[in-house]
Amino acid sequence: MAEANRQIVLDRLPQGDRLAPDHFRLAEAAIPQAGEGEVLLRTRYISLDAANRAWMQGATYRAALSSGQVMAGGALAEVIQSNVAHLMPGDAVFADTGWQDYAVLSGKRLAKLPDLEPMTHLLSVFGVAGLTAYFGLLECGKPKAGETVVVSAAAGSVGSIVGQIAKLKGCRVIGVAGGAEKGRWLVDELGFDAAIDYKAGGLRQQMKEAVPEGIDVYFDNTGGEIFETCLFAMKNFGRIACCGAVSQYDGAAPPHGPRGIPGLIVTKRLTLRGFVVMDFEDQRAAALKDLQGWVASGQIKVQEDIIDGLENTPAALIGLLNGENRGKRMIRVR
Amino acid sequence: MAEANRQIVLDRLPQGDRLAPDHFRLAEAAIPQAGEGEVLLRTRYISLDAANRAWMQGATYRAALSSGQVMAGGALAEVIQSNVAHLMPGDAVFADTGWQDYAVLSGKRLAKLPDLEPMTHLLSVFGVAGLTAYFGLLECGKPKAGETVVVSAAAGSVGSIVGQIAKLKGCRVIGVAGGAEKGRWLVDELGFDAAIDYKAGGLRQQMKEAVPEGIDVYFDNTGGEIFETCLFAMKNFGRIACCGAVSQYDGAAPPHGPRGIPGLIVTKRLTLRGFVVMDFEDQRAAALKDLQGWVASGQIKVQEDIIDGLENTPAALIGLLNGENRGKRMIRVR
Repeated sequence: MAEANRQIVLDRLPQGDRLAPDHFRLAEAAIPQAGEGEVLLRTRYISLDAANRAWMQGATYRAALSSGQVMAGGALAEVIQSNVAHLMPGDAVFADTGWQDYAVLSGKRLAKLPDLEPMTHLLSVFGVAGLTAYFGLLECGKPKAGETVVVSAAAGSVGSIVGQIAKLKGCRVIGVAGGAEKGRWLVDELGFDAAIDYKAGGLRQQMKEAVPEGIDVYFDNTGGEIFETCLFAMKNFGRIACCGAVSQYDGAAPPHGPRGIPGLIVTKRLTLRGFVVMDFEDQRAAALKDLQGWVASGQIKVQEDIIDGLENTPAALIGLLNGENRGKRMIRVR
Repeated sequence: MAEANRQIVLDRLPQGDRLAPDHFRLAEAAIPQAGEGEVLLRTRYISLDAANRAWMQGATYRAALSSGQVMAGGALAEVIQSNVAHLMPGDAVFADTGWQDYAVLSGKRLAKLPDLEPMTHLLSVFGVAGLTAYFGLLECGKPKAGETVVVSAAAGSVGSIVGQIAKLKGCRVIGVAGGAEKGRWLVDELGFDAAIDYKAGGLRQQMKEAVPEGIDVYFDNTGGEIFETCLFAMKNFGRIACCGAVSQYDGAAPPHGPRGIPGLIVTKRLTLRGFVVMDFEDQRAAALKDLQGWVASGQIKVQEDIIDGLENTPAALIGLLNGENRGKRMIRVR
């Protein structure tokens, strides 16, 4: 371990501008040592999520980021040194390492992950993305067989799994994604019933054609115009699972929200529910068992988008915010 | 019954303008006769509700109104002739008579109301207003003892009961209403913990001072700025019961909705639920039993705002939309 600890520092916070490479800089530090109750982790795969950008906007379910800190982010990491009894060198954990080669964290909240091939599934379908899809759809959306489910950012890490779970629950599933190619992939490869290309314009008209019967469950990853369009297309007693708002993270905060709030919520008797995956910690084991079964049987196809090199993390996040990924995007650090 | 049937006709629909007396005209027609399966009703008390205005904007939970029709509205009415077995002359019913002296309706959906003194309570606390407050607060808001509940249009027919039910469930209760006098009434007479005067300006600051701990349950009757202010003041895992949007009914549809949607729903893990009282028909008897007990014990004070004369119905509705009523407003027809 003679090498240094490469770090991606959030050099300055975006102030209403779009995230760009020069918001970050590469730094080097000494490899830290684990103190009492701590572990030294080596980062293997860094998870890229729209949430990384949301954290720059202000306090969310975690404190806001500040300039000068190592960019925050979750990763699959390997235990190198351990001063806690429940972790041994070589164990894999999911941890808030930030964007760097090495990190020292308290061992208290870390748990050894199962051995699994490929390990990257621990970041995608068996990680935050898969669990977010699972709990958001089933606990907040509560779809019933025969109902119509629409999901936005449908080709993303969460959306692609939401749609597949909805299909295996017997729903009609429409994905909203950018570009005809993504749409074809959703329909031909993942079994969605139809896709809407939000970049092609005419969103309302496309929605009307794809979902003439109205929407029972809308799983929202985007907010903004897609949210509003779905709101107007909801059936009475429909449910909206509010998972994220990727359309709103990169740039200035929107001056207004979607029309129809709260009027349409009342007249259509809608339920909107926001959630964060850690709210369902107590149901995690059962969810993973379901997800593992569906992956093993081929009912869920897992799509991962793996980019090599810590130095590429900023560009990979910027690309994700522009919708260039398909499935779960991550950085292979080494 | 030699007299005629006076009717208030919706002469022309408002088109983005505010409701005014000249949208209505008084007409006279012959008193209709009840056909097979029908009853002839004489209107006693007409219920005035913000919903009357919402129906002019387009389809809601009922079809949109059209110009030239007798203005729609619910009323407490007396059966004059009956061609159905379950109703007799002299029985009181709640019916969609519209704004007129007499109406013929199918008897199928009408039910005899209990004898009760004063009969007007059947329109207020034991009618749609009381049941709306009850189900919206308890089923959608789900307040727990010790939590903080905010209700808008707090001096209105629904809001004044919402606040009192929340108090007797052990909550801290803040009412938003227009004018200092209404606020004093809420606190001194109805037992609210505090009141916010939205007409005094500085809504955010007032909210911060009145609810420093944040809001667990917001019962929304108004939409608009009050909705947005409460949204930003919600605690994590808060619930918003969406009952109506009186601020949005009278005038052009707002070009945008509240800020923070859906972002704050996600980060605060909020649940927003829209409802209409008839969705809870199966729980009606139990709710009425509770409400009757609370009124009998003095835990709920009933405020009614009764105006004489069918010809005054349009002005009474316009006044209600301007927030001039306190408690349940109704017209005594005769």
